[in-house]
Amino acid sequence: MSFHLECMSNHTVAFTHENKQVTVTVPTGTLLSDAAQLAGVDVGQPCGGQGRCGRCAVQVTAGDIRRRSTLRLSTEAIDQGFALACQSIVESDVGILVPEQEKIERNLTTDRVAAEVSVPDGYEFTWSQNIRRYSVRLNPPSMDDQTDDWSRLQTALRQKYKLENVSCSISLLKRLGAVMRSDDWQVTVITDQEIIDENIKTIRLLDVVPGLIDEDDPLWAAAIDIGTTTVSLWLVDITSGKVMAQVAEYNGQISRGEDVISRIIYASKGSGSEEMQRRVVETINRLSEKACKKIHAKPSDVIKATIAGNSTMIHLLLGIPAASIRLSPFVTSVNHPPFVASHELGLNFCPDALIDCLPGVASYVGADITAGVLSSGVDTTEMITLFIDIGTNGEIVLGNRDWLVTCACSAGPAFEGAGVVNGMRATSGAIEEVWINDETYEPTIRVIGAGKPNEKGGAKAKGICGSGLISLIAEMFLTGVLDKAGNVNLTLPTKRVREGDHGGEYVVAWGSETESGQDVIITRVDVDNLLRAKAAIYAGFSVLAEQVGMSLDDVQQMFIGGSFGKYINVEKAVQIGLLPDMPWDKFSFLGNTAIKGAYYTLLSAQERERVKDIANRMTYIELSADNSFYEAFTSALFLPHTDMAKFPTVEAAFAKHPA
Amino acid sequence: MSFHLECMSNHTVAFTHENKQVTVTVPTGTLLSDAAQLAGVDVGQPCGGQGRCGRCAVQVTAGDIRRRSTLRLSTEAIDQGFALACQSIVESDVGILVPEQEKIERNLTTDRVAAEVSVPDGYEFTWSQNIRRYSVRLNPPSMDDQTDDWSRLQTALRQKYKLENVSCSISLLKRLGAVMRSDDWQVTVITDQEIIDENIKTIRLLDVVPGLIDEDDPLWAAAIDIGTTTVSLWLVDITSGKVMAQVAEYNGQISRGEDVISRIIYASKGSGSEEMQRRVVETINRLSEKACKKIHAKPSDVIKATIAGNSTMIHLLLGIPAASIRLSPFVTSVNHPPFVASHELGLNFCPDALIDCLPGVASYVGADITAGVLSSGVDTTEMITLFIDIGTNGEIVLGNRDWLVTCACSAGPAFEGAGVVNGMRATSGAIEEVWINDETYEPTIRVIGAGKPNEKGGAKAKGICGSGLISLIAEMFLTGVLDKAGNVNLTLPTKRVREGDHGGEYVVAWGSETESGQDVIITRVDVDNLLRAKAAIYAGFSVLAEQVGMSLDDVQQMFIGGSFGKYINVEKAVQIGLLPDMPWDKFSFLGNTAIKGAYYTLLSAQERERVKDIANRMTYIELSADNSFYEAFTSALFLPHTDMAKFPTVEAAFAKHPA
Repeated sequence: MSFHLECMSNHTVAFTHENKQVTVTVPTGTLLSDAAQLAGVDVGQPCGGQGRCGRCAVQVTAGDIRRRSTLRLSTEAIDQGFALACQSIVESDVGILVPEQEKIERNLTTDRVAAEVSVPDGYEFTWSQNIRRYSVRLNPPSMDDQTDDWSRLQTALRQKYKLENVSCSISLLKRLGAVMRSDDWQVTVITDQEIIDENIKTIRLLDVVPGLIDEDDPLWAAAIDIGTTTVSLWLVDITSGKVMAQVAEYNGQISRGEDVISRIIYASKGSGSEEMQRRVVETINRLSEKACKKIHAKPSDVIKATIAGNSTMIHLLLGIPAASIRLSPFVTSVNHPPFVASHELGLNFCPDALIDCLPGVASYVGADITAGVLSSGVDTTEMITLFIDIGTNGEIVLGNRDWLVTCACSAGPAFEGAGVVNGMRATSGAIEEVWINDETYEPTIRVIGAGKPNEKGGAKAKGICGSGLISLIAEMFLTGVLDKAGNVNLTLPTKRVREGDHGGEYVVAWGSETESGQDVIITRVDVDNLLRAKAAIYAGFSVLAEQVGMSLDDVQQMFIGGSFGKYINVEKAVQIGLLPDMPWDKFSFLGNTAIKGAYYTLLSAQERERVKDIANRMTYIELSADNSFYEAFTSALFLPHTDMAKFPTVEAAFAKHPA
Repeated sequence: MSFHLECMSNHTVAFTHENKQVTVTVPTGTLLSDAAQLAGVDVGQPCGGQGRCGRCAVQVTAGDIRRRSTLRLSTEAIDQGFALACQSIVESDVGILVPEQEKIERNLTTDRVAAEVSVPDGYEFTWSQNIRRYSVRLNPPSMDDQTDDWSRLQTALRQKYKLENVSCSISLLKRLGAVMRSDDWQVTVITDQEIIDENIKTIRLLDVVPGLIDEDDPLWAAAIDIGTTTVSLWLVDITSGKVMAQVAEYNGQISRGEDVISRIIYASKGSGSEEMQRRVVETINRLSEKACKKIHAKPSDVIKATIAGNSTMIHLLLGIPAASIRLSPFVTSVNHPPFVASHELGLNFCPDALIDCLPGVASYVGADITAGVLSSGVDTTEMITLFIDIGTNGEIVLGNRDWLVTCACSAGPAFEGAGVVNGMRATSGAIEEVWINDETYEPTIRVIGAGKPNEKGGAKAKGICGSGLISLIAEMFLTGVLDKAGNVNLTLPTKRVREGDHGGEYVVAWGSETESGQDVIITRVDVDNLLRAKAAIYAGFSVLAEQVGMSLDDVQQMFIGGSFGKYINVEKAVQIGLLPDMPWDKFSFLGNTAIKGAYYTLLSAQERERVKDIANRMTYIELSADNSFYEAFTSALFLPHTDMAKFPTVEAAFAKHPA
């Protein structure tokens, strides 16, 4: 159905995109990006609509628009009618050609490899959970017994199970009558209890389902990690504690900002906050559909979800303003969010499913880190442990069972391929490992999805992902293509090194080997971005150690979390000075520690208390307010570091190569 | 903005209404009434879309529709293209002429007369209420103190007021940061506390407002009565307990059903439940705007609302299915609804304002009656009291402080003018009192809004309202125009009595005196409807008394609630056998006892407990399952009753008149 209304000063905007044309009518002054959204035409805004990235450029084919900014557009492009959708305003009827948008493939590499998860020792449903399930047969109402539905159910629960103080939400009351009548007055209720003291507990109804249910029947819950880039969901049968399905997908907010800062900026404008909430909720809903499909369940069967994620992700999910996270003095609205019912967020779980967002510590050390500390056991070990979660940001924790300090390094998303000319995410076509011959300077590359050597039909190189960049920089450094400061040695006897638009560059793959036919290169500017990213992280390690009066040599074990960590070659990460130089057996790669923490706290009320305790115990060090940070950072801007003595194994390896 | 889409098998429907034309596009098979709603054209459906009342008739001026039913349409009307909007389906492009709709005047007579209300003795804010107000100055965040906003507020409340276990909703967290920053980190919080035992209480934040607030500053709450016909709202300053504004308006659901049954039927179809909820919420929102305007407050300042209403009204407000109320064995979904936050219903109060719907007893004895019992004190008096609330239905309570029995009489809305040819509500133009000369049979009438006799410009008679009907029937009976069985004596020497389409009729006002120019009459059929209504009520009295083994003579006082009660002439109500024949000094007219009860429970946690206790104590008698009811009903179908001995004063009055 449609409803035709004509307003004053309205203009039509005709979008042509992927051979389709969609026309919308908007008032004068509407942003092209808003018009595109109204038309259902997706125009990516990786910088969050700040006009900084240039990726939302569209071509005006008819009519006039007003450009507020043309940053990143060449004069030639402007002459051809290109304009930034996020910076251009409709002032007449216009025709807009939307170029092909970068596709974000929904199926992540990580989605194909399920993590190995075992049910925690001693897990027992009724001991570990506050959730209970009760089946009752009700007496049907009659003219002699006109008790209301809800009192009838309460009476039955009191008589059979001695349950008192049971409460029921309006949303559940809306369904109650129909459910009670649908299987001959037999129902099963699912409750959550809060024990206030030994004599008093309050009981809240989460769901009511038709029929009597067996104790062995599964009862579904979800552990979720909302990453800036990737959202992961594990579907858990809480009667056994087993993870029955694992799924992951890119966060639907990506097209409105690649990093948390861009997202906060986007969310602060107009209805941006509602859109960001909707986008991540849609992602979670797709994931729950997908996971449930695998095990023949329905998302509406899920009665609880425990969610980890950085503070920005949690604020955006809950629709709480995140602006103060970005502005000095960098405070969140809430570190310990209250429980919320699924329907309040628009999630597709059981409407009253408990949504439990885990507690964070600070604006840039969120619930993903407290969950990671819990699942990796940093807070219970005697050993001095350095924990790092390398994702879109780098968060670091140093400590053991007695103390915990933490900080966040604004490393930026360089290791996810952003800010690097041929950077890309770790999907098909990404160069993930590089070896450089130290005589010919010819590289050997490994490409994701390329198939075995000499096999046909595999993916061709498209760009370089994070692990590939670490590998590449390390090899370039050890073979002398780069010097300590990151300069490309243009005097080497190879066509691979050359002067480019952005200074010296190295050709990793010739156009003849690549998908686009263009050379895949790394430039001096790219190297600088990567050096800054790795220096920020290493400086974070140094400052934390200094804060507690120890050196990095005192660290007894190093935990690396984040799915990215799984693909890092430690030797090479040490060689570029990203990770401290310590024996390999001290490193553990733990994968997604955040979702594992969400899973453990989902399973156990005791673990849920523990993560709260972790959040309260962690001392947060604000690096931007720390005088020693800048010094540590500049010292770390070299390969591997100004002070080579901190990297004895690299020094030794370097000695083997011709300088 | 609009978005043009073309679907298959769509048709345009062009509505012409009040000189405007609105066109909508709908798929084949759409009901005309749904198309009208989409177009924003209001077509009244007093029977709830059952096709029974014929009041939604519209004229098809072009194209074809399919009529599923033509009940209440004459062949002539059908030939002219008339069709029932709720029963006709769009099958081609059509033009529809919508006749002028009956206007429901927003300003009720009762809105102009404020009830006299005094603050209950001993009312003291902090003793009677669980609501508290606390002002705090916060330390602003800095790089040395990056505590999150919510923890910062909790800490300040703990330090200054020793408040522990304070919780905050997501909806409030969304506003918290901005409010904390808007008056230099000074805020006032409004809380509700639940005392679990002497050592433990939980505290819930209702609102946070900028700045420090004086103890004397008002704090707003609302008492509301949702009547089937009229919604009333009192705005209360709970610091003093005073009612500061009283407003009332017709319930916006009226155009979708005049009685509860029609509303339940309408709500059970499609999105009817959402529409009914929206309509009553809009009515309440308009009332709160209006009340707040009178005292320079904002609806968003209102932090609590206590609501009385019959069980159907409460179910429809909460969006809980009401279908089982209408179907044997007539049970509600819930008699004691849980608290709900204002924003969950779409009310315009403070988003987390506590909405407290008072408890009811049964499908047809709702919270309006428990509130009425409370405010009239039936539950605390030693005297045996008969309480009746005459509204759209008649609910009766008999009892005292030791026992309470109750029943509901499906009297129907006859006394509100429905089912009576010239019946109408008590608004301008309604005949509200009639005297008939026992020799000439000429009536003298009093018309609402007519002005003083011989004054010009007042309202002319349009019809007869409830009190007018009671008066008229009593006079007709005493003067012999009607016999005991309700037959019109056509042999009387007056043109006022005559044979009409519906049997004998009496002309109350000649066309020359009326607004329409048509005679205002009462017919044999009208009299039958009114006899059935009054018999249902009187039979209710009889059955209740019989249930507790007493006679109506044992009743020591009679309370009449409902705004209708205020306008009844008791003598005449007794003469027709609507009220039992007892000395006038035993009758008390209490006006709207429901809103008074809502007001008392709004003010006091103790009174709130009392109304719960009343709901639990009342024994409900289902008349339709009671064998003695039918007998009592048929005995009461006469004027005043088969057994004249029950009405000695009427017998005496009748003896004076010529038989």
